[in-house]
Amino acid sequence: MTQVTFEEISPADFFYRNRDIAGFTNPTRAVFAAIRELVENSLDAAESIKVPPDIYVRLSFEGEASAETQIYKLRVEDNGTGIPPQYIPSAFGQVLYSSKYKLKQQRGTFGLGGKMALLYGQITTHQPALIISSTGGARIFMYKLMIDIQRNRPIILDRKILLNKDGWRGTIVEFTLEGDYLRAMPKILEYFKQTAMVNPYANLTFVDPKGRLYKFVRATTVMPDPPRETLPHPYGVDVEFLQRIIQVTECDNMLDFLKVHFHRVGDVTAKKFLEFSDISQSKNPKKLSHEEIVRLVQKLKEFKEFLPPEASCLSPLGEELLRTGVLKELKPDFVAVHQRKPATYAGHPFIVEVAIAYGGEIPQRGNFVVYRFANRIPLLYDEASDVSVKVIESINWRRYKVTPDMPIAIIVHICSTKVPYKTVGKEFIADRLEVRREVANGIREVARQLQRFLSRREHVDREKKRLGVFGKYLPKIAEFSTKLSGKDKVPDIERLLRSVRRYGVEGD
Amino acid sequence: MTQVTFEEISPADFFYRNRDIAGFTNPTRAVFAAIRELVENSLDAAESIKVPPDIYVRLSFEGEASAETQIYKLRVEDNGTGIPPQYIPSAFGQVLYSSKYKLKQQRGTFGLGGKMALLYGQITTHQPALIISSTGGARIFMYKLMIDIQRNRPIILDRKILLNKDGWRGTIVEFTLEGDYLRAMPKILEYFKQTAMVNPYANLTFVDPKGRLYKFVRATTVMPDPPRETLPHPYGVDVEFLQRIIQVTECDNMLDFLKVHFHRVGDVTAKKFLEFSDISQSKNPKKLSHEEIVRLVQKLKEFKEFLPPEASCLSPLGEELLRTGVLKELKPDFVAVHQRKPATYAGHPFIVEVAIAYGGEIPQRGNFVVYRFANRIPLLYDEASDVSVKVIESINWRRYKVTPDMPIAIIVHICSTKVPYKTVGKEFIADRLEVRREVANGIREVARQLQRFLSRREHVDREKKRLGVFGKYLPKIAEFSTKLSGKDKVPDIERLLRSVRRYGVEGD
Repeated sequence: MTQVTFEEISPADFFYRNRDIAGFTNPTRAVFAAIRELVENSLDAAESIKVPPDIYVRLSFEGEASAETQIYKLRVEDNGTGIPPQYIPSAFGQVLYSSKYKLKQQRGTFGLGGKMALLYGQITTHQPALIISSTGGARIFMYKLMIDIQRNRPIILDRKILLNKDGWRGTIVEFTLEGDYLRAMPKILEYFKQTAMVNPYANLTFVDPKGRLYKFVRATTVMPDPPRETLPHPYGVDVEFLQRIIQVTECDNMLDFLKVHFHRVGDVTAKKFLEFSDISQSKNPKKLSHEEIVRLVQKLKEFKEFLPPEASCLSPLGEELLRTGVLKELKPDFVAVHQRKPATYAGHPFIVEVAIAYGGEIPQRGNFVVYRFANRIPLLYDEASDVSVKVIESINWRRYKVTPDMPIAIIVHICSTKVPYKTVGKEFIADRLEVRREVANGIREVARQLQRFLSRREHVDREKKRLGVFGKYLPKIAEFSTKLSGKDKVPDIERLLRSVRRYGVEGD
Repeated sequence: MTQVTFEEISPADFFYRNRDIAGFTNPTRAVFAAIRELVENSLDAAESIKVPPDIYVRLSFEGEASAETQIYKLRVEDNGTGIPPQYIPSAFGQVLYSSKYKLKQQRGTFGLGGKMALLYGQITTHQPALIISSTGGARIFMYKLMIDIQRNRPIILDRKILLNKDGWRGTIVEFTLEGDYLRAMPKILEYFKQTAMVNPYANLTFVDPKGRLYKFVRATTVMPDPPRETLPHPYGVDVEFLQRIIQVTECDNMLDFLKVHFHRVGDVTAKKFLEFSDISQSKNPKKLSHEEIVRLVQKLKEFKEFLPPEASCLSPLGEELLRTGVLKELKPDFVAVHQRKPATYAGHPFIVEVAIAYGGEIPQRGNFVVYRFANRIPLLYDEASDVSVKVIESINWRRYKVTPDMPIAIIVHICSTKVPYKTVGKEFIADRLEVRREVANGIREVARQLQRFLSRREHVDREKKRLGVFGKYLPKIAEFSTKLSGKDKVPDIERLLRSVRRYGVEGD
């Protein structure tokens, strides 16, 4: 008989063994994923203090690694909030240690991305990472770190403190990794372009290994309000969560407990709910039995009168900024944008924003160009599995007089405190019923606007043709009639022509 | 300024927060995923000791949970290897604690699935799980467990020891969870059917909440050899891994080190490699500097003369068993199977097995029915992203005289020590170049066989028609000629007809 042996592995070891799950599948994906994860951390860090992000990314060639891969040094600088020195080692050297385990909208939510990048760098090049950060105080902190993967702990190799004479605030991360930039290049450039589209208030600079400079300059300094941390909505609560808040609560009665710990539960709603579920207002939550907790969770889901989640914890882009971004990066002839009202799935609030653009720099490929975003992150992989693509495929586009060979781009942005990703690599969004419905309604709305634009343009074209016919033959008829009647002066037909112009011809 | 706060969460807490990643997306997926994860553990447990699996699954209704979901009790019994009592609590109550972190082919490789099922049960119903197991010795052990999610540790609520009079060996897992069986039913039944297809030596019994019995009876007791644990192939090694084996090795020279710790590295290959990479045979591996370790990993990847990985660590189904399984579950008119030679991606060996089946119970849907398997697991979700589906879409099927409206099923089975899944939920396989090539070549091979079958059948049809024409007119001509010539007896045309039969008409 085979002897079964068991072992425990650390979370760092788990993700080291399963890096496919975090998007670090191969040298091409790895260099893309590393840039992306660090840029997203930087964007979050600047936006959390409502500072227009200035992000500088440099990838430089360090040497050959194999026939197809190279060693690169990646450096990402930002002007974000900075990291207090005591947190730096763990924030970069310990998996499942993060500032991102909060109930609010942010790009990173797994607290994994940045560390996966450093971990991948370490296992391919075995060099330490350099972290420089300041929260804007008198000092700048500099750490040289590696990760003890088996123990999931940072190893501090060096630590320096510098004077911060200029009051600099931000974070710099620099490390080496093996990668295949040539193959990754198209996705990386696409990533920057799309990031610029949904973050039109950000300056993004990328210097590639050949020294080529790609600059995406902000089109505005207007920024959406930063998302706020929020309380959980009653619909989204499970037994585990309820037990945790019961453990830490200072409330000694159910009425206060509900009002203090849940989103949009006021006095009236709390009282109604307690009556509905037959629980006394003065009951001490710490005295609830296991069975009562389970029942309470069920009742929280059943009660129909909780207010829907408020959008204040969400930070959608807004129609104006979305329009700005699309115009800036696609330069279309036409764009329609639409923001849906806040909705909710499993207690998590979300907002869908949609745009449709026509013409300009949008390529004509035989099918629509789809740009997918979640919490202002472009999603570039596994398009076929994404909820938005499924919705787009299910729509009867002929209804909107739209055919796939038109130069049309569809932009879908989903923002939520909890984006239902299917992978830690944030590649695509799960097909949740509630999300699907919002996306579908959003796309239909902008599709109708596009239809009006297209049919208006068709009218105009027809009118132009009609006027062309009048313009060509009327003078001849006038001339002929003049001759026929023996008169000398051809009558003025300009007024007549003007009268048949039923539509103002734009741009004519 | 916002205050940044950091926190550490346990791996159990991470997967509790991100259960979408493990396939526990909603009550429908959850009940499917729970059954699947436990069945797969059971199959692994029986196969590891080469015992034809007998697996009994019962899902029973316990009560209403909400308008759309119910509470179910899930019980899974197997005749597998059993779990030694000291391991039971952690094996079921601690995430990232498993017997599956081995370099060999097995269904579960994340060591997560079973625990995710129990964890999901706990957070939705807050009931303990019951584990009963025996390795066939004198005693049976019985545990009542819950998981302390925040600490990632098992909580033992009860423990009993029973006498094992009948020498029973196996494991029983029973727990409650919230789910939506009605919605999940089609996928669950499909899962059992497909599992029966690639595990034709297994008995699977499923009793659903309505008491309906689904029985999949084994068609054979022949089993593939159980996979063996293997050494890593030199191509698949990274710096982290190399450092780990250097730490634990007892070898004091590089020659022994390479021979002892790597797959298919013998004396000759080891010496050649050390010469190639300019390392002394007597060098102590523990004295390698960081830079030398990094260089060694590069050289291991560059050296062209390592033998390809052996397939002994893999346990493919084999052409005969695959044929048995397909015939058993699809009852087609024609089936072709093909096993590719072992190949390798990033140092991981893998084997692709492919079958194509025509007619019988295969539905005519306007496109091919695709059955995807990895290490004898059916993959039922996110088909569009899977490498096999991409390959099938890229093939020019007209070359094989095949059209999508034919009743055709394509079966692809990939087995590997490391299946490149994109999610912990084991939904689909990443599009790796080497895997894609093997799948494509396998499908082309069976497609050619199908083409021969189809064109042979077409010939036969044409021949039948031709014979029909002869058979219809020849007697008339004979009769007419007989009359014309004034003779009485119509000549025997049977021999003539027989002579135009160029092909044996099967089943005629």
